[in-house]
Amino acid sequence: MTKEEVFKFVLKQKTAFIASVDGSGFPVIRAMLAPRNIEGNDLYFTTNTSSNKIKHYSGNDKACVYFYKRGIFRYRGVSIVGTMRICTDQKTKDEIWRTGDSFIYKQGKTDPDYCVLKFTCSHAEYYCDLKTAIVDFD
Amino acid sequence: MTKEEVFKFVLKQKTAFIASVDGSGFPVIRAMLAPRNIEGNDLYFTTNTSSNKIKHYSGNDKACVYFYKRGIFRYRGVSIVGTMRICTDQKTKDEIWRTGDSFIYKQGKTDPDYCVLKFTCSHAEYYCDLKTAIVDFD
Repeated sequence: MTKEEVFKFVLKQKTAFIASVDGSGFPVIRAMLAPRNIEGNDLYFTTNTSSNKIKHYSGNDKACVYFYKRGIFRYRGVSIVGTMRICTDQKTKDEIWRTGDSFIYKQGKTDPDYCVLKFTCSHAEYYCDLKTAIVDFD
Repeated sequence: MTKEEVFKFVLKQKTAFIASVDGSGFPVIRAMLAPRNIEGNDLYFTTNTSSNKIKHYSGNDKACVYFYKRGIFRYRGVSIVGTMRICTDQKTKDEIWRTGDSFIYKQGKTDPDYCVLKFTCSHAEYYCDLKTAIVDFD
């Protein structure tokens, strides 16, 4: 399974499920909007600076991102393990920004609650019809 | 938000997303079938003994279970943090078994690959229309 095939699947999904590890070592799952951009092995998400997951990733960058599609007769999913970085540079924030974001972030691209997350894929498993395939990110 | 309200929501969903922590401390998400039973603060799932998540939970019982419903105009989700126990007693396995399981586990209720997981809820957050509510499991 190539990463291109996985990213093609990822780009069709509307929802991402991401996991962080809290201060007590518990995993915590959240739903997110699908990634804005994919570059190389990096997936870019937007979220609120004030959210709990930002607290988690500030202390522990270990992360997982999951995408799935459930049909009537088949199920497909991919679980990607990697690291999550909080992007603080304005250049990246400007690139990821979309016009509609100003509905949520009233101060625009420099709104302190507007946050960009960069997830770097390390390894992954893809599931389809009860079969598992390892994904190669090299 | 009461646990009864949360479990009412949980019971309507077909898919559960569960997270474990692997041997290197990374969270790993998987999709699962919805829980078979809910008793007190415990959710019972079935899975394969040979699956990676069983390896993870054997070494680290910290877990998260997530349920969500995405509509056209609204989004609801609940992220429950707790501990996961692998049930090895045959009594529990017999109680959770359903007739259709023999399609997957050819040896029936004592098939070595038939595994029951018990997740005990500790604390949770419920999300609805961009608002968050803490769930009380006491």
